[in-house]
Amino acid sequence: MQLGVVGLGYWGPNLVRNALENPRYEDVWVWDRDPQRVQLIRRQYRAVRVASDFDEMLRNDAINAIAVATPVSTHFELGCSVLNAGKALLMEKPFTATVREARALRDLAEKKNGKLLIDHTFIYTSAVQKIKELRRKGDLGEIYYYDSVRVNLGLFQHDANVISDLAPHDLAIMDYLLEQSPTSISAVGVAHIDRRFENIAYLHLDFDNGLVAHFHLNWLSPVKIRQTLIGGSKKMLVYDDMEASDKIKVYDKGVQITRKDDVYKTLIQYRSGDLCVPQIRNVEALKVMMEHFADCVEKDAAPITDAASGIRVMQMLEAAQKSLKLGGKKIPLTYE
Amino acid sequence: MQLGVVGLGYWGPNLVRNALENPRYEDVWVWDRDPQRVQLIRRQYRAVRVASDFDEMLRNDAINAIAVATPVSTHFELGCSVLNAGKALLMEKPFTATVREARALRDLAEKKNGKLLIDHTFIYTSAVQKIKELRRKGDLGEIYYYDSVRVNLGLFQHDANVISDLAPHDLAIMDYLLEQSPTSISAVGVAHIDRRFENIAYLHLDFDNGLVAHFHLNWLSPVKIRQTLIGGSKKMLVYDDMEASDKIKVYDKGVQITRKDDVYKTLIQYRSGDLCVPQIRNVEALKVMMEHFADCVEKDAAPITDAASGIRVMQMLEAAQKSLKLGGKKIPLTYE
Amino acid sequence: MQLGVVGLGYWGPNLVRNALENPRYEDVWVWDRDPQRVQLIRRQYRAVRVASDFDEMLRNDAINAIAVATPVSTHFELGCSVLNAGKALLMEKPFTATVREARALRDLAEKKNGKLLIDHTFIYTSAVQKIKELRRKGDLGEIYYYDSVRVNLGLFQHDANVISDLAPHDLAIMDYLLEQSPTSISAVGVAHIDRRFENIAYLHLDFDNGLVAHFHLNWLSPVKIRQTLIGGSKKMLVYDDMEASDKIKVYDKGVQITRKDDVYKTLIQYRSGDLCVPQIRNVEALKVMMEHFADCVEKDAAPITDAASGIRVMQMLEAAQKSLKLGGKKIPLTYE
Amino acid sequence: MQLGVVGLGYWGPNLVRNALENPRYEDVWVWDRDPQRVQLIRRQYRAVRVASDFDEMLRNDAINAIAVATPVSTHFELGCSVLNAGKALLMEKPFTATVREARALRDLAEKKNGKLLIDHTFIYTSAVQKIKELRRKGDLGEIYYYDSVRVNLGLFQHDANVISDLAPHDLAIMDYLLEQSPTSISAVGVAHIDRRFENIAYLHLDFDNGLVAHFHLNWLSPVKIRQTLIGGSKKMLVYDDMEASDKIKVYDKGVQITRKDDVYKTLIQYRSGDLCVPQIRNVEALKVMMEHFADCVEKDAAPITDAASGIRVMQMLEAAQKSLKLGGKKIPLTYE
Repeated sequence: MQLGVVGLGYWGPNLVRNALENPRYEDVWVWDRDPQRVQLIRRQYRAVRVASDFDEMLRNDAINAIAVATPVSTHFELGCSVLNAGKALLMEKPFTATVREARALRDLAEKKNGKLLIDHTFIYTSAVQKIKELRRKGDLGEIYYYDSVRVNLGLFQHDANVISDLAPHDLAIMDYLLEQSPTSISAVGVAHIDRRFENIAYLHLDFDNGLVAHFHLNWLSPVKIRQTLIGGSKKMLVYDDMEASDKIKVYDKGVQITRKDDVYKTLIQYRSGDLCVPQIRNVEALKVMMEHFADCVEKDAAPITDAASGIRVMQMLEAAQKSLKLGGKKIPLTYE
Repeated sequence: MQLGVVGLGYWGPNLVRNALENPRYEDVWVWDRDPQRVQLIRRQYRAVRVASDFDEMLRNDAINAIAVATPVSTHFELGCSVLNAGKALLMEKPFTATVREARALRDLAEKKNGKLLIDHTFIYTSAVQKIKELRRKGDLGEIYYYDSVRVNLGLFQHDANVISDLAPHDLAIMDYLLEQSPTSISAVGVAHIDRRFENIAYLHLDFDNGLVAHFHLNWLSPVKIRQTLIGGSKKMLVYDDMEASDKIKVYDKGVQITRKDDVYKTLIQYRSGDLCVPQIRNVEALKVMMEHFADCVEKDAAPITDAASGIRVMQMLEAAQKSLKLGGKKIPLTYE
Repeated sequence: MQLGVVGLGYWGPNLVRNALENPRYEDVWVWDRDPQRVQLIRRQYRAVRVASDFDEMLRNDAINAIAVATPVSTHFELGCSVLNAGKALLMEKPFTATVREARALRDLAEKKNGKLLIDHTFIYTSAVQKIKELRRKGDLGEIYYYDSVRVNLGLFQHDANVISDLAPHDLAIMDYLLEQSPTSISAVGVAHIDRRFENIAYLHLDFDNGLVAHFHLNWLSPVKIRQTLIGGSKKMLVYDDMEASDKIKVYDKGVQITRKDDVYKTLIQYRSGDLCVPQIRNVEALKVMMEHFADCVEKDAAPITDAASGIRVMQMLEAAQKSLKLGGKKIPLTYE
Repeated sequence: MQLGVVGLGYWGPNLVRNALENPRYEDVWVWDRDPQRVQLIRRQYRAVRVASDFDEMLRNDAINAIAVATPVSTHFELGCSVLNAGKALLMEKPFTATVREARALRDLAEKKNGKLLIDHTFIYTSAVQKIKELRRKGDLGEIYYYDSVRVNLGLFQHDANVISDLAPHDLAIMDYLLEQSPTSISAVGVAHIDRRFENIAYLHLDFDNGLVAHFHLNWLSPVKIRQTLIGGSKKMLVYDDMEASDKIKVYDKGVQITRKDDVYKTLIQYRSGDLCVPQIRNVEALKVMMEHFADCVEKDAAPITDAASGIRVMQMLEAAQKSLKLGGKKIPLTYE
């Protein structure tokens, strides 16, 4: 298997490094519009092969998969070219600039029978995989709420607000874990310092069945917090990504109504048992994803972070940005 | 100085204990409708004196102050009686059942020239006092945001939602620290388990000047979190009330625009210096408040948690509950 | 049951408070050589009864148990009087000034068929009881080591070193949990500031079977640490007494030799599973002990912290002080 | 500058990686007795150049520095060859197998006027450098004690005990920070599992002026702790290497004698001020050391971790192992 990597900005070099360290990727080709970046990556990883331009990469039959790590505005066009060239596509998040583009890419992949994986790296962390396992086994019961905080003293982007920057991670993780999609979304935020782009935002998502999700996104926090609370009818958990080893804490705690004589009298019971911190593997998420991508290409595995999940995330993002502009108006969501 | 305490449920006994331990309170009288509670407190604190009924307490000229720790529905009536009897009034939070009642009590206190202190105990913690001091000195600069999380596996109330239960604390602290009042408030929430009362809620407050405040209130969290982030233009702080000793962390961190050539190009600079954990006194907040109340009564000190602050908190609470009913609609706030 | 409390310095008032709150103690009598202390306790707890002197307490047949909370130099004499008067004895730690006295008190109690409980309060904490339970069930396997750190910016005593002050707690806990006694002990330390009494000390205890125990005791630490590591062949645990809720962490971790072909080749296997934080009750240790003491007196229960355990602790303390004087010389221990 | 790296086991590849990333190292040559290791490093870093044997490396005039990362038993011989070939020597820790060898290498380096740097990497961490800075400025005052805990579920070595494995780090850091050498050392330990090599050990070091140092080294701990307490007359600090960002906490706390009327009465005062967490750079220690080594070679800078410090560390290690064999006997130390 040979991989091409287009775009050598922040994320591309990580893809290159991982592919080079993985024996399933025999050769790794790179290209970027900026020759300096190509030079830089050549110096660091002398094993990479340099394509003279993107078309050369597309025409090279030995290359059977291409990773696109360019600015989002170019994702759609480059993605179409990759799929049309009959190659597997690994697309950096966010999937595309618009939901419309996302759907078009999905349709093209289906038509061409091409593989399409979206690089929602966090999904491949051992922590998220462990929570998924707990969820699948029914350990948590019915989910009541999903509350996520992702804040730090973040880099102010020059062309995007904090929702574009941080929410794709969290919405993708939530979508993967809950296996349920929100019926509406609202967002509020404020733009300090650089008045054009919001640096603090709060998203609120409603679901059927009384499930709610909430996200605090903030580039102006003195501390780095990446903490998610998930409350279920059977168990509750705290996922703290900043913890070195004890990332997931599963609490055998809960509240239940045991008897309900009439509408005004309910007997609420509290349960509080042991806390369990499940052992999780210490392995780089990107490495796991690159392995999975090789499985998709070579063994026809079904992509975990597929186009459908990418479209759902894009829909939520678009609705959130729309709500933000409308001062927090609730935006209904439907899926197709 | 002699104090009467009406209402011996959850909070009243704490007032009794503190008054008994404070030599400035010569005698402490108690009364409750429920004779069992009176018996209980007598057994625990044999020094308390028992009034035969509330009227006797009002008629007793030796008693110059009365603390009301009864259910909120009775606050207004009892508060009026205390003020009309010419005694100082210490009112448990929440101040009253409605903003209208709060204003009427304020007006009565002014007319009668009576002292009125609201028992927002948290204001009197060493931590909140230290943050106020930092704020007053201008250490934080302009405040950008105030983000508060108060969650735990809380007792589901049978007659109130999580906003009524937890928000009075946080709104009072915020009102005290920011010295600025929100222009609008919106609230969303959901009622699990007992379907009548919300057990999770998020409040969002807008202010002038781009300041925002946000509150996460939750009775269904497996962990107890009481954490506030305050981001200022000069410094930022984290106030973690669950920390045994290092409750306040002041970060010499920030972001600023140093040059702004045109609207599309801004040079944003990040500053990251030492972290300071100021030493704070280890003293019970209620003890500090009881001392302050004695100062108000005996030395004519101005109440820190006065009727005006109580009215502002009541307004925010009322607006939050209204917004909650309207599905998160933004409710404008004006003050008088 | 009526209790007398002799000695109203630091600890005595806690005994008084707990006895007053416990309905099994009908009356609580107090006495101290210093009349001011008697006055103080009377003012705080108006229900206490005051004995005119110690002899009166001894002669009062209604009093069937006496707690001695006086300086250690008086423990032996007062303890003998209590036992000779046919009353149950609750002795504050440290048990006595010397091992010889401890043995004599034990013998007297046996002769008089009197109850004798030593107030090693920590033994009665929910955390220590939970560890004991794990130990009894064999969850930890064979114990390899016991490592304890008890450090803080402590009060320099004017008549004792840090070993006398802090080690009684730790040695009593260790004695209770390990159910095995050391064969030798060595201690090193240093006296800063006040050159007469060591403020830092390290104790090292050897046992049969390769078990070792180690204690770090320190009055000059900027942080308060009370942490014990217990390593077993099956599981290992960390007991952190400063944690508000998660005091005990049980790690399913270990190392074992699975095959040993010859002396130079061993196959060592590492095991690393989930971490469990057992739920423990939130109850005051002293309250539990007072309940247990009532059981000893009224129901003839066997004292948990009995004279034999007190003697073992005294032996370790004496040997540690001897070793300290001899520059860390290993002092062998035998028990009778 | 061209660097040769001999020994490509655990540590060698890190040296290779760092040299390749540092533009001051023009070419990096490698050699190992095991051709598989050479193959492995070639595949990972295709820019490395492979020497056919060690002698070729020594004869190559373009190579002006050689890093030795082979087993310690070969350090002396290889080190001599490097110095005799007129090249700068970077020696992996532990310096040599014996103090005698260490002194001989130092003498040879002096005679040949050759550079010799010992790879005590921890010295080059931002945290240790910051503590050194505080120490140099006198912020801590006179040092009372140095207490270090370095424990984890460590790999049992097949040819060495826990002292050989862990103590070189800590003793080198201590030597660097205290700038004072112990007058004696004692060590106790125990060998579980594999009965030949101690897996738990405690070292105790006495200095002049009442300074003491203590080390807890443990391969059988369920948790990874790397914590050092340093108590000074002016300030005290906690250095926790497991903390992601707040590694150093400087406490404005202390104890002092303010008046001393006679030997039996001293007035001890406690001081407790703010806690400061100094900002430290986030940079890899090995990178800093490689830069420093380049300065030593190219700019004749004086090695920070020089032969003299290496000899002191070796002396302490040898004395500790001797004491361990003698059951904890205190071994006096003199320096030359």
